[in-house]
Amino acid sequence: MRRPVSRMRPLKKIACTSLLVAVVIVVLCELTGNKWQYRMAVDIHYRMESIPYGQHDYEWRTTVLNGSMYRWKESVVRQLTKKDCKCEKEESSLRSLLNWSSVTELETAFNAAERHEVKQRREKEYQHFQQRMKTSADALLIARANSPLEYPIQGVEVRPLKSIVIPGLSLQAKYWRRYEVNVTAALGTFDVAAEVDEVTVEGAGQMHLSLSSAQVDNLNRQLQFVTYTNTIFNPNTADTVLLKTAGHQAAFTIKIRHPVIPKLYNVKSQSGYNVSALVTVATKTFLRYDKLRELISSIRRFYPTVTIVIADDSSNPQKIEGPFIEQYFMPYRKGWFAGRNLAVSQVQTKYLLWVDDDFIFASDTKLEKMVEILEKTTLDMVGGSVREVTQYSTTFQHTMSVEQGGKDGDCLTVRKGFYHEVEGFPNCVVADAIVNFFMARTNKVQQVGFDPLIARQGHLEFFIDGLGLLHVGSCSDIKVDHASKIVMPWTRQSESDRLYKGFRYIQPVEEDGRLQEKLLYFKNRLKCMKSK
Amino acid sequence: MRRPVSRMRPLKKIACTSLLVAVVIVVLCELTGNKWQYRMAVDIHYRMESIPYGQHDYEWRTTVLNGSMYRWKESVVRQLTKKDCKCEKEESSLRSLLNWSSVTELETAFNAAERHEVKQRREKEYQHFQQRMKTSADALLIARANSPLEYPIQGVEVRPLKSIVIPGLSLQAKYWRRYEVNVTAALGTFDVAAEVDEVTVEGAGQMHLSLSSAQVDNLNRQLQFVTYTNTIFNPNTADTVLLKTAGHQAAFTIKIRHPVIPKLYNVKSQSGYNVSALVTVATKTFLRYDKLRELISSIRRFYPTVTIVIADDSSNPQKIEGPFIEQYFMPYRKGWFAGRNLAVSQVQTKYLLWVDDDFIFASDTKLEKMVEILEKTTLDMVGGSVREVTQYSTTFQHTMSVEQGGKDGDCLTVRKGFYHEVEGFPNCVVADAIVNFFMARTNKVQQVGFDPLIARQGHLEFFIDGLGLLHVGSCSDIKVDHASKIVMPWTRQSESDRLYKGFRYIQPVEEDGRLQEKLLYFKNRLKCMKSK
Repeated sequence: MRRPVSRMRPLKKIACTSLLVAVVIVVLCELTGNKWQYRMAVDIHYRMESIPYGQHDYEWRTTVLNGSMYRWKESVVRQLTKKDCKCEKEESSLRSLLNWSSVTELETAFNAAERHEVKQRREKEYQHFQQRMKTSADALLIARANSPLEYPIQGVEVRPLKSIVIPGLSLQAKYWRRYEVNVTAALGTFDVAAEVDEVTVEGAGQMHLSLSSAQVDNLNRQLQFVTYTNTIFNPNTADTVLLKTAGHQAAFTIKIRHPVIPKLYNVKSQSGYNVSALVTVATKTFLRYDKLRELISSIRRFYPTVTIVIADDSSNPQKIEGPFIEQYFMPYRKGWFAGRNLAVSQVQTKYLLWVDDDFIFASDTKLEKMVEILEKTTLDMVGGSVREVTQYSTTFQHTMSVEQGGKDGDCLTVRKGFYHEVEGFPNCVVADAIVNFFMARTNKVQQVGFDPLIARQGHLEFFIDGLGLLHVGSCSDIKVDHASKIVMPWTRQSESDRLYKGFRYIQPVEEDGRLQEKLLYFKNRLKCMKSK
Repeated sequence: MRRPVSRMRPLKKIACTSLLVAVVIVVLCELTGNKWQYRMAVDIHYRMESIPYGQHDYEWRTTVLNGSMYRWKESVVRQLTKKDCKCEKEESSLRSLLNWSSVTELETAFNAAERHEVKQRREKEYQHFQQRMKTSADALLIARANSPLEYPIQGVEVRPLKSIVIPGLSLQAKYWRRYEVNVTAALGTFDVAAEVDEVTVEGAGQMHLSLSSAQVDNLNRQLQFVTYTNTIFNPNTADTVLLKTAGHQAAFTIKIRHPVIPKLYNVKSQSGYNVSALVTVATKTFLRYDKLRELISSIRRFYPTVTIVIADDSSNPQKIEGPFIEQYFMPYRKGWFAGRNLAVSQVQTKYLLWVDDDFIFASDTKLEKMVEILEKTTLDMVGGSVREVTQYSTTFQHTMSVEQGGKDGDCLTVRKGFYHEVEGFPNCVVADAIVNFFMARTNKVQQVGFDPLIARQGHLEFFIDGLGLLHVGSCSDIKVDHASKIVMPWTRQSESDRLYKGFRYIQPVEEDGRLQEKLLYFKNRLKCMKSK
């Protein structure tokens, strides 16, 4: 009678141990947050092959040149966006004859010896930039005619490692012996949320799914249940789904990304706008404390409680005391844009107002108007106009355009003027570049940033960096005074003024005279800048 | 004989005057940069009607519930992304039972009286955010089956006020008496770059173009020449083009935008990586100068020439002297994130390395490794691991996901773990949140920013703000030491330590204890945060 018992014991042991092991595994999984399920490596290296230029541009001329019976309409052809912009100065126009237009060849800022190497490095950096920015959702796709396939062409999006039902799939065919649809993806798998009778589903949970049925209605019902699950996550990518049926093929993209988390400002609403709660005044000073004090007292006359942020890189900084004033001390001569970047980085309100330290608020410096247009429209930034002692005031409204120039870089054209007026704001227009007196969404300005390499003088550079990111407006009726730059014979120049001018307008030996051009060439990948 | 002469004189006068006038007009046009041609107002107000939630999500359940012959596959249905995330704590899971998971209801951070008003304001701000972000290119479009129309479904883009040829247009039909195609747009006009024989073109230069012919080949040739010119510019919008022919209709979008200008860094290449040319070390200090000095000397042991940027908001700041050291002085107790923002705003190199002021470099603090992975992959940021005196070191690898929650806000879930390993870098993975020791592309960190409202403690907040913007990696084999927080009985705590702890861990009366939760609720528009 012992035998069976003895046979039982080891069995029990095994049972217990395996139970124990199971428990341990479960606990481990829980502990590690199920890491194990993602144990796989993904290649996110920059690819070596370069992205062809204007890859998204259909080579239409070549496709039509064979064949006859047509005449070019030169007036239209001339207007077409080119892929090979030139840097020549346009001739025969009154503007160029009167020298109102100019072209700067940026490559020449580098000495001939280094140009080739610099250009190659720029090209490599640009390829990397492209690969970080572009996804297959940017590529050109054509919907073929007379395809029995119905499918979504835009607006399909999935969260990292999540699942969605693919909308709008169907097969519109008649009188086939058997109806079959195949879908293929690269960064995720397919499945069905429900199973329909008389439909054969192969490849559920895989990157290739095959559906077939003798009844097209059943197949279409089944197609409505097809799900896509992202399995390989790379931020900001897209999967291209291939859709096939007898003799026909279609492709569409599914965007794979996190939602961009909003950054909203919690400001109690009230009748009118609470400027102090919505706006911070930001400025940068260097030596000119007399000017700065003038500015501050002029601000206080109209806005006693608005916060003023001051970035200061003077040698022997003076403390500016007072309520709602924040002064930041930087290393000596850190520079103009570095200071602007610092000031902007410290703003806690929804909007910031940029002023130079030699501006003076007047009765028509109406910040409420700027707040109103920013609160009511989609603009990110709105400028005013700066009034000189001569009473002449400028808004510096400009538009910019970039034409493709291939490997040599693109061409930037800057024009006086604007795009259009802003409905409901008679004195306001939309432009790309404006004057140095503007109110803007704080996080948009922080996103663009002021390039700290620009030390002494710089203005347009910020708007070039902001092109494609900032939605810019300009209102001619919101004004600020500019402390005179014109020194009359009888007005004696202050000590600080003389010092300041020395630093600002006389270029130090260590500084690169053509720095700005080099930045436009390398950083912004331009080959020339035209102004018209 | 006088009469004719006398009749001639006034004529001459008229001729001369009109000639003069003409010249003046030309000059004026040139001067004004042809402003006149854009004289029109565009409505860029925020629209009143709110954007429906999940508008891009196809209501598939409703479309299929009528009809029969199918069974839900619950295992799949459970995985589907929901539009109405719940904040309940999941039951019955080991993790929740053992309290490894938690749910924070964020609305409760506000007192009951104000909740309603706060929520309404948040909703309004969110609608505005949506309207700034979204374009018609995000809406769902379906390509209909068996349409004779061929057209581009993605990848068509035009620059503000510029012209392109629309790629891929054709009509694939047979045996029609007359072939006709109509195109309609809202933000631009159509024209043809060439005219084809025996094709009637109506509406050239207008928002509606009609092409017709008796020969389909001629019509298709003509379709290859159709151009689109953007006439109404709003940054970051898209025009929806309607395409019609007998009994069929299709729609596709043309994106209207400036290119985003690249911001490339010009760093001379060399064998290996020049850390000092590529990286700036950024840190924030408050009172703990002994710790800071330890950090700096440990950095100098390995990287004697790397620039170190220090943001300092101490009460009686001490000057930290030395080569390649930049110290910035802020108003007293400006705070932790404000200081990080300042330091980051002053970095001039391609990458920045974030370190806390109580870190200490060791022989395995290999910045070259971090540079290598950033240079070779599409990552924006890569973290290391922080080693405590106990020799235990942490990478703080987490993933995050956001589920839609409708008007109440979305649900954020934070999980321990990562997405996948990085091919070619065995100890590196991709995640959404990492430890406080990381190297990153400078302009990406500046774009996300550190919310200056977070004064004393904060970490995850930065990565939440960065979700959808940052491509984050983490390498466990790149380590930095953490000056001990564990005070042994025999080690006497330094004066500065005691002061520091007082400020950091004891909450001042004026501070809002639930500030972080309020920010998540309002700024990031979340209703709850779950950790698993």
